[in-house]
Amino acid sequence: MVYKFTNTKYIPLLVFQLILMVLYFIFVRYGGDKHYDVRGFEGTHVMIFIGFGFLMTFLKKYCYSALGFNWFLAALVIQWALLCQSFYHMTDNVIYITKQSLLEADIMSATVLITFGAVLGLASGLQLLFIAIIEVAVACLNFWLVADIFKVADVGGSIAIHAFGAYFGLGASWALRSRKTKSDPATTTPTVDLGGPSYNSDVTAMIGSIFLWIYWPSFNSGLTNSNSEYQRAVINTYLSLAAATVTTFVMSSVVSKHHGKLDMVHVQNSTLAGGVAVGSVCNMHIGAGGAIAVGIGAGLLSVLGYRYLTPLLTKLNVPDTCGVNNLHGMPGIYSGLLTVLFAALATKEEYGTDLFGVFSAMDDKGLGRTAANQALYQFFGLLVTIVISTVGGIITGLLARAPVLEPLKDHEKYDDEINWELP
Amino acid sequence: MVYKFTNTKYIPLLVFQLILMVLYFIFVRYGGDKHYDVRGFEGTHVMIFIGFGFLMTFLKKYCYSALGFNWFLAALVIQWALLCQSFYHMTDNVIYITKQSLLEADIMSATVLITFGAVLGLASGLQLLFIAIIEVAVACLNFWLVADIFKVADVGGSIAIHAFGAYFGLGASWALRSRKTKSDPATTTPTVDLGGPSYNSDVTAMIGSIFLWIYWPSFNSGLTNSNSEYQRAVINTYLSLAAATVTTFVMSSVVSKHHGKLDMVHVQNSTLAGGVAVGSVCNMHIGAGGAIAVGIGAGLLSVLGYRYLTPLLTKLNVPDTCGVNNLHGMPGIYSGLLTVLFAALATKEEYGTDLFGVFSAMDDKGLGRTAANQALYQFFGLLVTIVISTVGGIITGLLARAPVLEPLKDHEKYDDEINWELP
Amino acid sequence: MVYKFTNTKYIPLLVFQLILMVLYFIFVRYGGDKHYDVRGFEGTHVMIFIGFGFLMTFLKKYCYSALGFNWFLAALVIQWALLCQSFYHMTDNVIYITKQSLLEADIMSATVLITFGAVLGLASGLQLLFIAIIEVAVACLNFWLVADIFKVADVGGSIAIHAFGAYFGLGASWALRSRKTKSDPATTTPTVDLGGPSYNSDVTAMIGSIFLWIYWPSFNSGLTNSNSEYQRAVINTYLSLAAATVTTFVMSSVVSKHHGKLDMVHVQNSTLAGGVAVGSVCNMHIGAGGAIAVGIGAGLLSVLGYRYLTPLLTKLNVPDTCGVNNLHGMPGIYSGLLTVLFAALATKEEYGTDLFGVFSAMDDKGLGRTAANQALYQFFGLLVTIVISTVGGIITGLLARAPVLEPLKDHEKYDDEINWELP
Repeated sequence: MVYKFTNTKYIPLLVFQLILMVLYFIFVRYGGDKHYDVRGFEGTHVMIFIGFGFLMTFLKKYCYSALGFNWFLAALVIQWALLCQSFYHMTDNVIYITKQSLLEADIMSATVLITFGAVLGLASGLQLLFIAIIEVAVACLNFWLVADIFKVADVGGSIAIHAFGAYFGLGASWALRSRKTKSDPATTTPTVDLGGPSYNSDVTAMIGSIFLWIYWPSFNSGLTNSNSEYQRAVINTYLSLAAATVTTFVMSSVVSKHHGKLDMVHVQNSTLAGGVAVGSVCNMHIGAGGAIAVGIGAGLLSVLGYRYLTPLLTKLNVPDTCGVNNLHGMPGIYSGLLTVLFAALATKEEYGTDLFGVFSAMDDKGLGRTAANQALYQFFGLLVTIVISTVGGIITGLLARAPVLEPLKDHEKYDDEINWELP
Repeated sequence: MVYKFTNTKYIPLLVFQLILMVLYFIFVRYGGDKHYDVRGFEGTHVMIFIGFGFLMTFLKKYCYSALGFNWFLAALVIQWALLCQSFYHMTDNVIYITKQSLLEADIMSATVLITFGAVLGLASGLQLLFIAIIEVAVACLNFWLVADIFKVADVGGSIAIHAFGAYFGLGASWALRSRKTKSDPATTTPTVDLGGPSYNSDVTAMIGSIFLWIYWPSFNSGLTNSNSEYQRAVINTYLSLAAATVTTFVMSSVVSKHHGKLDMVHVQNSTLAGGVAVGSVCNMHIGAGGAIAVGIGAGLLSVLGYRYLTPLLTKLNVPDTCGVNNLHGMPGIYSGLLTVLFAALATKEEYGTDLFGVFSAMDDKGLGRTAANQALYQFFGLLVTIVISTVGGIITGLLARAPVLEPLKDHEKYDDEINWELP
Repeated sequence: MVYKFTNTKYIPLLVFQLILMVLYFIFVRYGGDKHYDVRGFEGTHVMIFIGFGFLMTFLKKYCYSALGFNWFLAALVIQWALLCQSFYHMTDNVIYITKQSLLEADIMSATVLITFGAVLGLASGLQLLFIAIIEVAVACLNFWLVADIFKVADVGGSIAIHAFGAYFGLGASWALRSRKTKSDPATTTPTVDLGGPSYNSDVTAMIGSIFLWIYWPSFNSGLTNSNSEYQRAVINTYLSLAAATVTTFVMSSVVSKHHGKLDMVHVQNSTLAGGVAVGSVCNMHIGAGGAIAVGIGAGLLSVLGYRYLTPLLTKLNVPDTCGVNNLHGMPGIYSGLLTVLFAALATKEEYGTDLFGVFSAMDDKGLGRTAANQALYQFFGLLVTIVISTVGGIITGLLARAPVLEPLKDHEKYDDEINWELP
């Protein structure tokens, strides 16, 4: 109790903010008019702050925390991620900042918000902030390995952002889980159930869900290199999301326990799995029919995951409040495996001048990889991401158990009361 | 009761989704970098999924269905509409898909969502989906007739989208209406009134209403051909909406039954009538003052419609839950009649090079229609649209009475309970 | 009581709308394809109608009025502001309207909505509309003085929009305040407290707050002249907002009365102070670290203002419902003072060709001001704005006390009941 409820607990974050300021003063300069016309920035910005924030308001008494910590985390992380990412691309120790840097920082902050979803209501504010700062450093290292060293194609970030964030979150969730002990009988007392939605909170969650859905084509296509690659990414994402949505509604009814009634958990989340599943391949020649097939698969996988896998994971001491494994984890792996397939099938005949934009390592003037070789690297990148994220999450979660970070007691979970002045 | 409450009721939709997939595999190819820079796509996307969805959450216990079925319907319809629309413009049996195709599919899905508004809370999920699939096929045929055969100017779709959707919906609503019979006394039992708003549901409905209002200029101007035509469409829509909004507030107070109090129904809907009313003429030279005049007229027409006409229609067995006749129907006809006027007034002196962009059939190198001739076609296109939509709606509504589509009993209306797992 | 609760009270607004229509018919013509590609219009539009509207829904029983009057006011004001602003730039008595005019009208309407925030729940609908119409005329005069005569650099409008709106509002609030008299004992009777939030209303307020935050970079950068100036404005605003957000959360906990709990008032408002504070300097060379420093200062200033200054102002008979002094007023002055500093530091070496885009009066071919001279003008412009806005607000507020505008009695404050048909 000694560390609890003091007014100064977030002061270390202000110190961190001041350190960031100093680092920006030293290293960062304006990028002039370079990359000022990057696509998808505004839409991605809406996804990060409205999308993720409101999606997590589905819990009946955790709306302030969902919105507040989503904002607090993302505002801190975008500053920190911009530095961590640019660290690997400095010229003469100077970081040139552009609108594209801002977009990349926004995208990287999604990683942390996905992890937040796994431990929503289960971690204290200080734990979340601690996890976020560590996670960004690890995620940027992984991103550099996957994108710059292995030259893996992952335009929508389903591997390095979605799968990474999900498995980092599941690792942390397992490490942070409550351990029931004889000496702490209070934690076994049943309390009012706050771990579910109210009618209103399910409606506000839909604001987040639908805005994520709407701007997902912008997210996936933001970092493409040519106009035709851009348009392909938008079309594939749009079709995959639409097909996943139809599949989600049908499957939600199919697996229902009560006379085929629809479940808001599926509607709010599995509809989006189509955007994750197509993410890494959306700029490839998967075909319009292929995009729809990917979306149908994503809807199936995600609804079945929510219905059968999440309860199992909870029993295995891996709670997952938002079910990020079903929205970001498994669909991310699915997308990674699809890149293996479509990299292996890639030919210069089909892609034309876009081939080296999509698969930079296949350029004859560069590494000159074969399609099969590229496919192998895609698989390797996926594997490395899963290992680094899971191990990173577990270690970070264990460190976050430190009493100074104020771990929650059982009766404090899913409750705004502990963090907020309530009306 | 035999078909009711089974888990497999939506399976036919998954089959339809699989058929769509196959059709896309066969017919659809990427359009390269053609039309990748179409304007207004993102804004229109927000209107369809956030705008229409949240606008319909005004009923106190039908928010899940409003948001859910809006999403389900639109996700299915955009895939289906893209095929139906492109069917009329195929080259060598291939459909080249671009961002413009996606925009056109989004716009076409508005038709179905307007129809949804007429029967909101009165039709079952299966009925809605059945109606949607039929309606898109009929609407695309009408669109082809009006746009390609009659060469009617209708840039914002007030004729072929708004009026069509509204009168198809009223037709279907009349056909679907409850028929009280002696043998079914249960339906005459009074139940709790769910056909109205709560304080919260009126606030969430405003999310939809305001986003529709904000992006309406993007919607109306998306398919313009030149920069000056585009800018004129944005300006006219903006001014018409603003004037309709001021008029709506004033008139809502004027027609109030209780000491001049404002009515949320008017505020949520009649404010938008300015966007519909200016839709078909927004790219014409109606003048900035003319745009304001159009908006004032729309606000008057719409508020008076809500206050006096909708109760009358309900008595005449044409229920209209959202009052789509006042937001889309009459303002759509009004816009259609305005096109007759402004087509008749169109001169090459005033329009310059834009004339053939706005009225393609007046091109000397093409059909070479006179202004008077074009005006006649505008009137004809409006008439055909109203006839096809009303008749199409009635027939589709009658077909949708089939027991297999699970028509609602009176006590099941306006109630999420029947479709959703509620908290 | 004689004027109260009649159905015709808003009729003068319809007359005003008709006058606007006539003025548009006479003076306004389409601007062809000039300025059709202005940046930031759609985002600013979202800020005005969704952002300001929902931010003000935080009161538990004033959500309809917040959303409704925000919309009513803004729809009227954008038409009126477009005329007032263009009045100073007419060519041959003709106003050429473009998308940039619409953006400028949107920006000017923010002034009125900020003033609305000061008197939220304290002024009647008629008072608000009266104040709005007067304020726009005064604000456009001030804007012309500051921008066109003094040639003050104020790209994001922190001086002429934010500070102006706030001090006009505080002036009006002081003038409108309740005056307790012996002859009116009823007003001293305690009533149910409606001057605070509910759990739901705080969540809907976050919709407004976060959308304001997201599109603030679009707002500040909309009227820049070159691509590098544009990009600098976006980057500085983004970083300042992020730093202000982190600072707000930390400081909200620091100044908390209850064990470091966070306060939604700070989170909804002080997070945005970073956007105001950087507004006037966002296109200058303040450096990325400088932008973060500005944001940290804004967060500090704003949270401390909410915690200590607003209660003091209320005691001094200057109620400020939304705390606009802490979000727009003081951060606006802060931004104005920063322009004095950065104008004094401006050199041609650092700015290159952008110098005359940022500081038009420093152009050798024009006024050829020195940096020190420009700094003096910046200070002068800030001073003039504060004086005109405060005095203008007081006079307008005193005029608005006229009984014909139906001033509220104490028990009618913060209550939708008086204006709306409630469910």
